[in-house]
Amino acid sequence: MLIREAGADDWPGIWAIIRPVVEAGETFTWDRDVSQERARAMWTAGHAYVAVDESGAVLATAELHRNQGGPGSHVANAGFMVSPSAQGRGVGRALCAHVLQEARRLGYRAMQFNAVVETNVRAVRLWQSLGFEILTTVPEAFHHPNKGFVGLHVMYLKL
Amino acid sequence: MLIREAGADDWPGIWAIIRPVVEAGETFTWDRDVSQERARAMWTAGHAYVAVDESGAVLATAELHRNQGGPGSHVANAGFMVSPSAQGRGVGRALCAHVLQEARRLGYRAMQFNAVVETNVRAVRLWQSLGFEILTTVPEAFHHPNKGFVGLHVMYLKL
Repeated sequence: MLIREAGADDWPGIWAIIRPVVEAGETFTWDRDVSQERARAMWTAGHAYVAVDESGAVLATAELHRNQGGPGSHVANAGFMVSPSAQGRGVGRALCAHVLQEARRLGYRAMQFNAVVETNVRAVRLWQSLGFEILTTVPEAFHHPNKGFVGLHVMYLKL
Repeated sequence: MLIREAGADDWPGIWAIIRPVVEAGETFTWDRDVSQERARAMWTAGHAYVAVDESGAVLATAELHRNQGGPGSHVANAGFMVSPSAQGRGVGRALCAHVLQEARRLGYRAMQFNAVVETNVRAVRLWQSLGFEILTTVPEAFHHPNKGFVGLHVMYLKL
């Protein structure tokens, strides 16, 4: 497995991961019918990364951007998606570790997630194992298709 | 004083308030050198409001938008700016009350602020007096030009 910055050629593989995740509406606060154009603009607004296998297939993808502008631009934010076929193999963990390293290299002082769905237990545990803490949980801020209104964690790691 | 939805003709008066506030870099997480074009796109992406005096001069302005997309779009976010010449006269409070009413009318279930600068005591007290609570304070998430790194409150009100 290789983790590297995404290039234009990686987009079809990235979109193949993003689309079903967003459509499912269980873990991301994106419009479930997001267009490919809009998704690409959002995912590649900052830095985008891919984890690829030996054949070059995209196993997982991440994006890194500033969480706020101007006087808040020293805190990063990031998003991660792993292909269902690659789950449980440590790909997400390796990608997250890489993105944390990248955030440090780019001079960010902390990383903040604004909207981690509390029922996305696998992701919450992964972030926590990497040192993130839950600062608060915004009550009923996410409308889960099966579980109704659930909380969104604000998670934070000093870099 | 009249509070109403902003029209295209109000933009010069709105920009006259926004520009110095953003340039000062003490209360907003916007790039301090934001262009007028970008500022207008951000301030008017959702609903924009103005409080005007008898002569039609803009005393204060607000904007209201969804805090997240898709499954998070039932929670609103808002921004407020009051002209220095109109401060201490209850204009901000009246405008905030109006925007809360608007958010209810539009079907939002809560309002969340992601980045209230903790040293912006006047604003924090105003939101608290209107029922907002501080859910958490993200440490050192705002670089204040005089006070260094200070916290950003996440504030919340169920509607």
